[in-house]
Amino acid sequence: MHHRPERDKRVTTHVALVARAFGAKGIFIHGEDMNLLKTIEKVKANWGGKYFSIEFVKNPKKVVRDWRNSGGIVVHLTMYGIPIDNIMEKIINKNTKILVVVGSEKVEGWYYYNSDYNIAIGNQPHSEVAALAIFLDRIYKGGELNIQFSDAKLSIIPQERGKKVRKNE
Amino acid sequence: MHHRPERDKRVTTHVALVARAFGAKGIFIHGEDMNLLKTIEKVKANWGGKYFSIEFVKNPKKVVRDWRNSGGIVVHLTMYGIPIDNIMEKIINKNTKILVVVGSEKVEGWYYYNSDYNIAIGNQPHSEVAALAIFLDRIYKGGELNIQFSDAKLSIIPQERGKKVRKNE
Repeated sequence: MHHRPERDKRVTTHVALVARAFGAKGIFIHGEDMNLLKTIEKVKANWGGKYFSIEFVKNPKKVVRDWRNSGGIVVHLTMYGIPIDNIMEKIINKNTKILVVVGSEKVEGWYYYNSDYNIAIGNQPHSEVAALAIFLDRIYKGGELNIQFSDAKLSIIPQERGKKVRKNE
Repeated sequence: MHHRPERDKRVTTHVALVARAFGAKGIFIHGEDMNLLKTIEKVKANWGGKYFSIEFVKNPKKVVRDWRNSGGIVVHLTMYGIPIDNIMEKIINKNTKILVVVGSEKVEGWYYYNSDYNIAIGNQPHSEVAALAIFLDRIYKGGELNIQFSDAKLSIIPQERGKKVRKNE
């Protein structure tokens, strides 16, 4: 939501990287940013996850409406919402596709009234990057940290010191 | 580590906001950024947490050395490290102060060899903002999301729709 290419480029890139690394299927980005696209495509090419889609949209409200019309639920992460611990079980039990809306403090009121849930990852100001990470962590119950991409060219072999990367043939 | 004011301002601000909101006592930042300082001081003034310290340092290696010399442990978060699930219990059992080192992919090799632990929040490229959030979440076992600052001027009253803020007299 409300990606401002100059100001927010790095933050939106972090949101996209977290989405991929923590198991989301793709991301919609309001606006267009070819540098961001290049960064994520390079990560996908090296570390896998070609299925992860990046779609730039002009009308994010339409994305929300279409998502709900097709049976999915829309979760808006905001410090003003209901604590995640109170609502997570309900959301997991819905067992349907979830669209997560994140943005800066400038997110329009419309999203508060047209999402299924407004959820707080703590009621303090912090970061949409952290909020998305914790939300996906609760959805996947920690399993996202063991994600493997079968199409990865490069894989890390965890080390106590230094860096070790395996090239997959 | 390696804060580049022009490029990284927003990301480092997010790191600092997550640190405060998720229960850290303060942050050391390599370099100097008065806009970042202003942003965080404003958050502290409104939402509380005056104890949260922001210290700009010229020599972050000295911070690491001093921390260890004074009995604390240093944890460097990196995608190349040991999976967090394998090591968290050990760290919590140390029951001592923890310095968390985060940075971009440009973090020098020195930190890999002079931290007590190199820990991976997943072995995928993502974000130091997300990595710090998940690390603190595991330290505090989710309790960080209920953090209250006794010196807050403003507090959120969680809502299903919209925003509700209480002014504390």
